[in-house]
Amino acid sequence: MRIYILDTTLRDGAQGETISFSVEDKLMIAQKLDELGIDYIEGGWPGSNPRDKEFFARARELRLRHAKLTAFGSTRFARNSVDRDPNVRALLEAGTPAISIFGKSWDLHTERALGVTEEENLRMISETVRYLKEHGREVIYDAEHFFDGYKSNPSFALRTLEAAKEAGADVLCLCDTNGGTLPGRLGEIFAEVRKRFDGPLGIHTHNDSDLAVANTLTAVELGATHVQGTINGYGERCGNANLCSIIANLELKMGHTTIGRERLANLTSVARFVAELANLPLRNDQPYVGRSAFAHKGGVHVSAVLKDPATYEHVPPEAVGNRQRVLLSDLSGRSNILYKLKQHGIADRLDERARKELLERIKHLEFLGYELEAAEGTFELLVREALHPGLHFFDVINVEVTTKMLAGKHSRTTASVTVKTQDGIHSATASGHGPVHALDLCLRQCLSSLYPSLADVRLTDYKVRVLEPKKGTAARVRVLIEWSDHRRSWATVGVSDNVIEASWRAMVDALRLELMRLMEVDETIEKAVEDYCWGV
Amino acid sequence: MRIYILDTTLRDGAQGETISFSVEDKLMIAQKLDELGIDYIEGGWPGSNPRDKEFFARARELRLRHAKLTAFGSTRFARNSVDRDPNVRALLEAGTPAISIFGKSWDLHTERALGVTEEENLRMISETVRYLKEHGREVIYDAEHFFDGYKSNPSFALRTLEAAKEAGADVLCLCDTNGGTLPGRLGEIFAEVRKRFDGPLGIHTHNDSDLAVANTLTAVELGATHVQGTINGYGERCGNANLCSIIANLELKMGHTTIGRERLANLTSVARFVAELANLPLRNDQPYVGRSAFAHKGGVHVSAVLKDPATYEHVPPEAVGNRQRVLLSDLSGRSNILYKLKQHGIADRLDERARKELLERIKHLEFLGYELEAAEGTFELLVREALHPGLHFFDVINVEVTTKMLAGKHSRTTASVTVKTQDGIHSATASGHGPVHALDLCLRQCLSSLYPSLADVRLTDYKVRVLEPKKGTAARVRVLIEWSDHRRSWATVGVSDNVIEASWRAMVDALRLELMRLMEVDETIEKAVEDYCWGV
Repeated sequence: MRIYILDTTLRDGAQGETISFSVEDKLMIAQKLDELGIDYIEGGWPGSNPRDKEFFARARELRLRHAKLTAFGSTRFARNSVDRDPNVRALLEAGTPAISIFGKSWDLHTERALGVTEEENLRMISETVRYLKEHGREVIYDAEHFFDGYKSNPSFALRTLEAAKEAGADVLCLCDTNGGTLPGRLGEIFAEVRKRFDGPLGIHTHNDSDLAVANTLTAVELGATHVQGTINGYGERCGNANLCSIIANLELKMGHTTIGRERLANLTSVARFVAELANLPLRNDQPYVGRSAFAHKGGVHVSAVLKDPATYEHVPPEAVGNRQRVLLSDLSGRSNILYKLKQHGIADRLDERARKELLERIKHLEFLGYELEAAEGTFELLVREALHPGLHFFDVINVEVTTKMLAGKHSRTTASVTVKTQDGIHSATASGHGPVHALDLCLRQCLSSLYPSLADVRLTDYKVRVLEPKKGTAARVRVLIEWSDHRRSWATVGVSDNVIEASWRAMVDALRLELMRLMEVDETIEKAVEDYCWGV
Repeated sequence: MRIYILDTTLRDGAQGETISFSVEDKLMIAQKLDELGIDYIEGGWPGSNPRDKEFFARARELRLRHAKLTAFGSTRFARNSVDRDPNVRALLEAGTPAISIFGKSWDLHTERALGVTEEENLRMISETVRYLKEHGREVIYDAEHFFDGYKSNPSFALRTLEAAKEAGADVLCLCDTNGGTLPGRLGEIFAEVRKRFDGPLGIHTHNDSDLAVANTLTAVELGATHVQGTINGYGERCGNANLCSIIANLELKMGHTTIGRERLANLTSVARFVAELANLPLRNDQPYVGRSAFAHKGGVHVSAVLKDPATYEHVPPEAVGNRQRVLLSDLSGRSNILYKLKQHGIADRLDERARKELLERIKHLEFLGYELEAAEGTFELLVREALHPGLHFFDVINVEVTTKMLAGKHSRTTASVTVKTQDGIHSATASGHGPVHALDLCLRQCLSSLYPSLADVRLTDYKVRVLEPKKGTAARVRVLIEWSDHRRSWATVGVSDNVIEASWRAMVDALRLELMRLMEVDETIEKAVEDYCWGV
């Protein structure tokens, strides 16, 4: 069966507590969702805030190949004339081919939240749907709180659906707005509606009971052909139904067609892209698309999965663009790395001593608190240094950085750095916005004449974590820095009880790695590293 | 119906990618789980690693009031005699009243992973169960991969259950080890088993399809009375079934009894406690127990929920020990704060000008990138400063901090700080492990004679986040520091393009707040702040 997907990441997803998309973010996400093969992209509520209004104005520049852009809003307000209702007007002005509007299905809401009679509520629904249909729009009617409404007063809830249906709504979408309904009850109610209404039915669920995906699949089993949700399940409170899980389950396990098998392989990268713009880390344990979703740690699992992946993997990770990872553990760690290096033919390029030294270095760094799995740049540098012993490009001789703060004035930071390169000793002094900036300026200045291409390398993220919280301000910290040279990105890590020293180590490693790579393009190394670390 | 809960956070949960519990952590968690009313605490696999063995040795010190400690292991190994099998011996040596053992139900695994015949597999199961029963243990038989096994070869899978049952297993627990089964299919298979076997059946699911909670509830509907899972759903790959969601759903929505309604109110605090020891932030959007689970952001939702919480809350948050939060948004933010301050009678204690100034300061700080919701310490300080204008305790005059690194040597950091207090000018110079440590030493030294009680305040966590990644090393950063004085903990925040300056600001605010609190115990302020910020 063809199931149509409405993505509401940009509207309901943006209600997530810490999420705040700029108009630029929203445009980029809309483009990505179109490429993924999403059918409807609900872009915002133009009647509720200026940012969403601007989004729809600028969305006309987008070149959507497949998706229908969809504006969201409420039915007309109580006692308003529909053609003068500012919210309805904003919906039409958004200029989208499809519009989703929500109306009230729960007597508690009409009485307590809106304070309108049942008759006025029905008129608000039917007049708004009819008016939008008269203006040539595809109309998705979202029956807000439908399941709670049905539980409270079934005939009232059903009459609101009839009003929308008679007025010409193209889809009746039943919403579990509070996320409190269990799949059994939701299925019973959905089946009742299915008996009474022909035409497309939709489902929109929230995750407050940890059942949003299950509830959505239940509705599809009972005939829903329109599914609403968000990428990574973003949304108010506990979030909306997670489309990443739903699309994968529908395609891979239930025999339905949504975005198609070919585009499904982009699912993981879209999940990461949206997480990036939402400024949230993608959950490691997120089903299908998380970094740990196909990661094996326990010894028993690892040995079985190496014999046959089906022993501990429910689907092939490649189907959703993810991949298998075999993790380090107390006992198996070093042999795992060796296994990876062997697999890619790198171990053969190291002699016995270099191999042993590399393993000892890795062991020591992990003991200090380095996390090489999260820092593929540092790991790649270690491997490359083992292949080219003694090659450092530069040695650091001396570093000093001072921050001064005077009452009422902005702080001032100055650094000086001395390094030795093959053409001599270089020193530099610079002021910066902070110690990391000042040190970065100095180091680049020292290296710029010999290695001008380092100018392309830029810091893109910086994270600090305390390793031994109980030691207070004297605790060791781990600094993880992400870098990009416009072609690719990588992360390096530094550990020290001094946040500046830890940052400096990560910085030196990042630039040294770039020089290694410029000297020698070696795809087997990159592949082995990627295989081991993959995706910070 | 009474449903028995087996918590495997300490065993299967510890397989989560980034989780590593110490023996101390495990003991503390076991104690907490007992207080929560969990029936079985699966503490580890004593035959697989020395840490788990030590845990069981030390667990004898625990005073469990209700829970049965449970050791986990496999059936005897192929071709071993059961009384000489080291794994089985370790299980008995653990000295627990209950033991859970897993056996193979899937022909793929016996053939490919173990390489044993069906007959040997059945003997491994029955001999091990019988042997443990003969030694007086309660035996929970975990049928690993039961659902995949049944799909592949139903009669083979059922014969393994018969073997365990005949040998005297107390519970037959069916496992969806790979997490790939959908609720419909899982229900069909469970019902088949229910028909053939009387006595207690259990369910153990994983979340690879985002359906672990739904699958568990489906099994309970079909007669499972023993449920396995982990706190916060920790576990390998995508995690185990989340007991926080399952317990709340069973108690509040399905009419079953697990830990009981009274203890249910501790659910949120236990979820936080375990997250703390797992060194993972508790997911904001986690159903029932997350910080955002009952948070309302959208204007429509906020106004409705203030009229009647049921309009957008599926259960009363207090039932699970959580609470309602009303969030700031672009438009409603400042009025929200005012609402909170009014609610607690603090607004009345401020004159018109002080009130306006306070709102302006909050507005300005948020514009700079401060996140006051996450930093109740900074927010409380703002409120207290508005109530006591001009009261600062100390003014910072001059700060300087220098880090030096010489090739091959450990870095060295020295700071000097000058502050003015009511008894004069104080200067201090100190070396520290890093800049934050050195500054902390100096500041405390300057203030120690006048305010000796500050010695109790300690840093407990330190987080740095880049606010404008596109600016590279010159970007502004936000530093969030958590503090504790052994009685309570709080967080302060500082924003600057200089990580040291941002840290310094957070540090100064934390100490200033402590002094404010020592001067004036004011519970209404604390209550208002908690109401607004609650739980970093």
